[in-house]
Amino acid sequence: MNILLLPASLRKDSLNSKLCRIVGRRLEQNHDYKVSLADLKCLALPPYDGDVESAEGIPSGVNTLVDQIRGAEAIIVGSPEYNGSISGILKNTIDWISRVKPNPLKGKYVLLLSASPGAMGGIRGLWHSRVPFEALGSYVYPEMLAVGKASEIISADLQVSDEKVKMNIERLADEFVGHIKR
Amino acid sequence: MNILLLPASLRKDSLNSKLCRIVGRRLEQNHDYKVSLADLKCLALPPYDGDVESAEGIPSGVNTLVDQIRGAEAIIVGSPEYNGSISGILKNTIDWISRVKPNPLKGKYVLLLSASPGAMGGIRGLWHSRVPFEALGSYVYPEMLAVGKASEIISADLQVSDEKVKMNIERLADEFVGHIKR
Amino acid sequence: MNILLLPASLRKDSLNSKLCRIVGRRLEQNHDYKVSLADLKCLALPPYDGDVESAEGIPSGVNTLVDQIRGAEAIIVGSPEYNGSISGILKNTIDWISRVKPNPLKGKYVLLLSASPGAMGGIRGLWHSRVPFEALGSYVYPEMLAVGKASEIISADLQVSDEKVKMNIERLADEFVGHIKR
Amino acid sequence: MNILLLPASLRKDSLNSKLCRIVGRRLEQNHDYKVSLADLKCLALPPYDGDVESAEGIPSGVNTLVDQIRGAEAIIVGSPEYNGSISGILKNTIDWISRVKPNPLKGKYVLLLSASPGAMGGIRGLWHSRVPFEALGSYVYPEMLAVGKASEIISADLQVSDEKVKMNIERLADEFVGHIKR
Repeated sequence: MNILLLPASLRKDSLNSKLCRIVGRRLEQNHDYKVSLADLKCLALPPYDGDVESAEGIPSGVNTLVDQIRGAEAIIVGSPEYNGSISGILKNTIDWISRVKPNPLKGKYVLLLSASPGAMGGIRGLWHSRVPFEALGSYVYPEMLAVGKASEIISADLQVSDEKVKMNIERLADEFVGHIKR
Repeated sequence: MNILLLPASLRKDSLNSKLCRIVGRRLEQNHDYKVSLADLKCLALPPYDGDVESAEGIPSGVNTLVDQIRGAEAIIVGSPEYNGSISGILKNTIDWISRVKPNPLKGKYVLLLSASPGAMGGIRGLWHSRVPFEALGSYVYPEMLAVGKASEIISADLQVSDEKVKMNIERLADEFVGHIKR
Repeated sequence: MNILLLPASLRKDSLNSKLCRIVGRRLEQNHDYKVSLADLKCLALPPYDGDVESAEGIPSGVNTLVDQIRGAEAIIVGSPEYNGSISGILKNTIDWISRVKPNPLKGKYVLLLSASPGAMGGIRGLWHSRVPFEALGSYVYPEMLAVGKASEIISADLQVSDEKVKMNIERLADEFVGHIKR
Repeated sequence: MNILLLPASLRKDSLNSKLCRIVGRRLEQNHDYKVSLADLKCLALPPYDGDVESAEGIPSGVNTLVDQIRGAEAIIVGSPEYNGSISGILKNTIDWISRVKPNPLKGKYVLLLSASPGAMGGIRGLWHSRVPFEALGSYVYPEMLAVGKASEIISADLQVSDEKVKMNIERLADEFVGHIKR
């Protein structure tokens, strides 16, 4: 079975991308999942514009992402919190996806994660990010994980130096898989 | 005193732009406000990317918009609802604005409106749109207005054919002005 | 398998109780579920008070409700919207339940419904009501149903006169069952 | 001018009551406000029940509280966070208040605070608590304050041992007053 990692950041060294890949590695190593990565930087989705959609149709980057979503049973989203709510990048991505029919997010299992350099980790943004996924019929896992001080804790080669955080990530990944495998 | 109209849509014939301009006309005609319009299509804000910000600084469109905000006492936002929550366009715009220091939205009075062709008008999106403004210290007016069936009710020359909706728009505009003039 | 109906209203002729029972009837007749009803009026939960909890323990009504929850695989909640958000009755009920360990709501499937005499039906309240359930680990079904004009549409003997609403209720009940039976 | 303190907890030694009173003391000592306290334990509001309201009218405790609200220009609310959202006690209180006409909360300035023994302090609950106040037309101050580890930091005689938290409370109180005095 396939899992799609969706880091909702355009940064090359995105903490959220690292967090997604740590979870992905767990799913490949401890469970029999095949993990793929959506690269929003490469997909280059433009800001949603209904006129552009009418004139030129769905952008190719959106179609590529939708294909990745259709091929996956579940999506691991890692998204920064901006201004106490969902990141504009994630929302714009969802807005485009929702223009494709049939709705690609309906019935998908979603796990929401957030990594940030600050102490709080983005818990408010995570709660806001649930809404558009749930409005589109995704099964968003109740538990979410906001990893604070991620720039100190997570290394370039995806090691987690804080043992408590590491175990929490692994436990959540395992429980999420247990739920969708039911 | 100045009011900025901020239609959070890139569409040329945006219903939300029309709704903003109807309120703006009221503020110019019945109150002594000078109204200006932020044109997100022209400002062409790219999707927020921290790497781009580090390499190239704040995009010029963001700086232009921030100048418009700094020159206004209040902002009238018209935004579509997408997927039960804030539009990605509005959120991306706020995310960019919040990168400029000092925070341009702190202490600004904000009135949130939504127009949509459907019956509901976007009330759920409005409630979500409050959050980033409030997180940034804006005084978002408690009452908001979601105009449903706006494509039928609002004409190209900004006439509102539904008398009840028209009076509601005018009442809300007057009350908002009464509040910020206090 | 068992389903618990939880109308979050103390009114004797509660529209939300009727809506819950209509869904419950569908689950008994078209699926092999056994349905029971939580009667918050009889359970008489006091307003949550930490001092009372310390002195006297968990009220018996809470324990009765928790037993009902533990014996059910899923919960159908019907709740009015008050002031754009969750009803105080529902929130107080959840606050008491959350004091019992182990957490009775973790892993339960929850379907949220709302009936109201007004046109809107309570959709904003439903979105707010998701949060405490999800914070406690319940799997809240993505789709929710807000039935407006319920006092006109739903009769005392639980007939639904609006054919479109009736079919929508039945479809949602069937899909919810399909999901939890997976 | 008058300010009403509204600690939304029934506990005798409520941390939220202490936090409200610390802010109230600041408003009396550094500004010319007269502060009064709403005591929800004494007011003994029953859980909202439409049948009771129809048969017996608004409970006397609600009327007393409404009188206190009408006599105040602003309300300082201190509320615990339960299960990631508004406390049932606060919501039930608002639900009752909203049954009195004309709406006592319309146009009132509200400052939301939260104290908790844990590290987080209740920021998610604060964001949820805004909604019913704003739906009723209150001007909820954009900034809110969640004081974590309050049982360690706040003494019985209302001293705040953490200097940073103390200064933050005083700054917020002063800014709130500056806003409503405008």
